Amino acid sequence: MNSDLYIALIHSPVLDRNKKIITSSVTNLDLHDIARSARTFGVKKYFVVHPSPDEQALNRRILSHWHSGYGQTVHSTRGDALQLVELVQDFETVAPQIERLSGSRPLTVGTHAKPMGTRAPLSMPELQRALEGRPCLLLFGTGYGLTPEWEQRLDLFLEPIYGASEYNHLSVRSAVAIYLDRWFSSLRS
Amino acid sequence: MNSDLYIALIHSPVLDRNKKIITSSVTNLDLHDIARSARTFGVKKYFVVHPSPDEQALNRRILSHWHSGYGQTVHSTRGDALQLVELVQDFETVAPQIERLSGSRPLTVGTHAKPMGTRAPLSMPELQRALEGRPCLLLFGTGYGLTPEWEQRLDLFLEPIYGASEYNHLSVRSAVAIYLDRWFSSLRS
Repeated sequence: MNSDLYIALIHSPVLDRNKKIITSSVTNLDLHDIARSARTFGVKKYFVVHPSPDEQALNRRILSHWHSGYGQTVHSTRGDALQLVELVQDFETVAPQIERLSGSRPLTVGTHAKPMGTRAPLSMPELQRALEGRPCLLLFGTGYGLTPEWEQRLDLFLEPIYGASEYNHLSVRSAVAIYLDRWFSSLRS
Repeated sequence: MNSDLYIALIHSPVLDRNKKIITSSVTNLDLHDIARSARTFGVKKYFVVHPSPDEQALNRRILSHWHSGYGQTVHSTRGDALQLVELVQDFETVAPQIERLSGSRPLTVGTHAKPMGTRAPLSMPELQRALEGRPCLLLFGTGYGLTPEWEQRLDLFLEPIYGASEYNHLSVRSAVAIYLDRWFSSLRS
């Protein structure tokens, strides 16, 4: 009952540090670090979701550097990882793409640094059982995280990553790495 | 038998992509992301080890931005995390500093993307048992990782983070996040 895993990095709508609703910019290292983690843990596709065509054109140029010429020659492992990246402007197109690739509609699963809304978040083993073989799409919010409206848009939420104290300000790059390691460890146990 | 955890980010000697021995530059985001992970998981100090006084002077300026004035006001959680950072030029001074802070000499423990040398690497629970209450200093190599000479200099090595395939090129920021999550989860289980 192995499920395909997909991830999406969301830039809009997300929160800023004052809990205002914003569209954040794409960070170059979010492309690289998260692609490398995705490739390491067997993620099928890494969707970078941003509504702006200009921003996506820039991302396309950055990616092409690593897919050809100098970048590909010198740093072939980077190109390998970045092949997983799919730039999309509209989140609504992601689930249909996954359905084409994996044969069934994914369960959409949000992540957050604090529990959101009223539904109880799932642990990783609970999530994997809930999938019943369907693909999983894990969402990560940039900035200060996904806005409350995502609670209505998504099927489930995963438990936050709790640390040693109240302090809970991991970078999104670190949070993705930890969730993917937990996904992969839980699959094997 | 709770043990204090310290981490060190090593810039020299480390390997480059051609397995040449180099001194790598400090990356701004290594300061931030790793400090935030360290703060989240209760690490006592985060030593950034680089032999160059010029490089360390630059790092000190970057840190001071977050410890005072604008950076501290706007992004106080960054300053909180970066308080853990200790800039040191000579790795040999790290263990004595820890001894002063925690009361006993730390076990020094390397990490690597592939098993090093002849000694069997330990799993996280095995490492925590081996500490017997002593502090632990986890080392992370920048670039393409710690050089073989660290095998002689350190007490133990941790198991690599294995993924779904042969591909194993996590960023050091992601690797630190995963090892700290594993440390913290294993402490509680």
